[in-house]
Amino acid sequence: MFQTVAIVGVGLIGGSLGIALRERGLASRVIGIPRREATIAEALSVGAIDEGTLDLRRVSEAELVVLAPPVLTIPPLVAAMAPYLRPGTIVTDVGSTKGALMGALSELLPPYTDLVGGHPMAGSERGGVLASRGDLFEGSVYVLTCIPRTRPDSVARLAVMARALGATPVEMDSDLHDDAVARISHLPHVVAAALAESTGQSALSQEVLRLLVAGGFKSTTRIASSPPEMWRDICLTNRDAILAALTDFEGALAQFRQALETDDGGALFDAFARGKQVRDSLVPVTLPGEPPK
Amino acid sequence: MFQTVAIVGVGLIGGSLGIALRERGLASRVIGIPRREATIAEALSVGAIDEGTLDLRRVSEAELVVLAPPVLTIPPLVAAMAPYLRPGTIVTDVGSTKGALMGALSELLPPYTDLVGGHPMAGSERGGVLASRGDLFEGSVYVLTCIPRTRPDSVARLAVMARALGATPVEMDSDLHDDAVARISHLPHVVAAALAESTGQSALSQEVLRLLVAGGFKSTTRIASSPPEMWRDICLTNRDAILAALTDFEGALAQFRQALETDDGGALFDAFARGKQVRDSLVPVTLPGEPPK
Repeated sequence: MFQTVAIVGVGLIGGSLGIALRERGLASRVIGIPRREATIAEALSVGAIDEGTLDLRRVSEAELVVLAPPVLTIPPLVAAMAPYLRPGTIVTDVGSTKGALMGALSELLPPYTDLVGGHPMAGSERGGVLASRGDLFEGSVYVLTCIPRTRPDSVARLAVMARALGATPVEMDSDLHDDAVARISHLPHVVAAALAESTGQSALSQEVLRLLVAGGFKSTTRIASSPPEMWRDICLTNRDAILAALTDFEGALAQFRQALETDDGGALFDAFARGKQVRDSLVPVTLPGEPPK
Repeated sequence: MFQTVAIVGVGLIGGSLGIALRERGLASRVIGIPRREATIAEALSVGAIDEGTLDLRRVSEAELVVLAPPVLTIPPLVAAMAPYLRPGTIVTDVGSTKGALMGALSELLPPYTDLVGGHPMAGSERGGVLASRGDLFEGSVYVLTCIPRTRPDSVARLAVMARALGATPVEMDSDLHDDAVARISHLPHVVAAALAESTGQSALSQEVLRLLVAGGFKSTTRIASSPPEMWRDICLTNRDAILAALTDFEGALAQFRQALETDDGGALFDAFARGKQVRDSLVPVTLPGEPPK
């Protein structure tokens, strides 16, 4: 499907993409361009790349360049690699925020290259190339976003790639994407991190807390284990949408506080019932024997 | 181990306990006493009970009475059944809050019966007897709490039962238990419900949100699907501890808000890193190939 693919930034997503492209015969050669030398050996060990280098100029060999480092490091990287990109190269990214990034990249990339934004909505709280899996994208949604000059056939090629990874490609406007993921992904990460942090502020011993940790805490805070650098960048590039979502969340939380303070069983029941109604409508109920969704 | 066990309130926990007691030969007979007639047939169909009745007086046949309805319904039930309990009967419960309940029950129960508080820290967001599983308690912690008159051999018998269910029995002071579960279980339920509710307040279409729902939202809000009635009662019986935990959480969340409002990348990184540190210290990191914890 592609001759040479360069993956710039080889963590969980870049590494998993590399494994999947290689395992499924979607690329003849995958060049990994990580930030740190040590990552090259790790990426080779898990089969994520055919070869690795720290030399950004090697993007000149690629038909497809995938940008997969933390979002804020992407623009300077693209500025540095731009002179070496060859005509017709498709540049894509895997960032969790699209609006600001697409605007910045469209100005940095030479007009003889093409840009398709990408957000494979798959991941794990465990970052790093060693956590990579070739089946990471199976069953997930792969959002594709365009800028005015994006060529339809470039989008089509990435859609075919997404399907070959086992994902469902969905073309979406950048701003709509950013608003939606602020609600469905970014705010949950902020909340999970704040919840975990506040648990640590308890006067109770770690030993007692660790003893009593059960399913609720584990699942509610699972994504608090995600890499802080990645989530800092996501917050900084989707600030307004996350703040709007946070304001709604604070409002819902304030209703719980008031119901608790006034011992209002009816208000508590209603608040829990509203949460259940939304959750059950957005995520199908798990049936007996199925893994939790 | 026990002749006849009466399970009063036959939902997920009562039903799972019934299945486990019967499958593991821990009780010769399990009588289910649910609130609704229809539950008897459901409980029989999943093997949770040997026979069912709505007649509370049947607790007179039981060597062990397990109270497993929503917490606030327990005291009136116990007041109604108290005259029929026979001498030597052990009464236990499976409630998520212990302090207030233990105080109330110790006054309602005849002095010739014994009381051991219990909190099997296992569950599921799916309530109801049809979700019951005999292995629900495997690998979980089973908290046991006492009042001054509790006989040591009653606690010992319930500890043996907990081990036979596959759980680890832990004896703990009621107030310490309530403080700890406010942090590790009750606040997470409030936060998950508020997060789910606020997602529903978005102006975005359900269709777009449902399309983009991924692992983060699913796990963070999983327990928002829990039965509202159960969580109303837990909040009402552990109000002060939950409010204290909520205050710490609001403080952690306010740091995120301030960092977002001031575009403070350093503060965002630090806040995410603190959440990650606490989460990783309380829950061991998942290794490759293991299911998420």
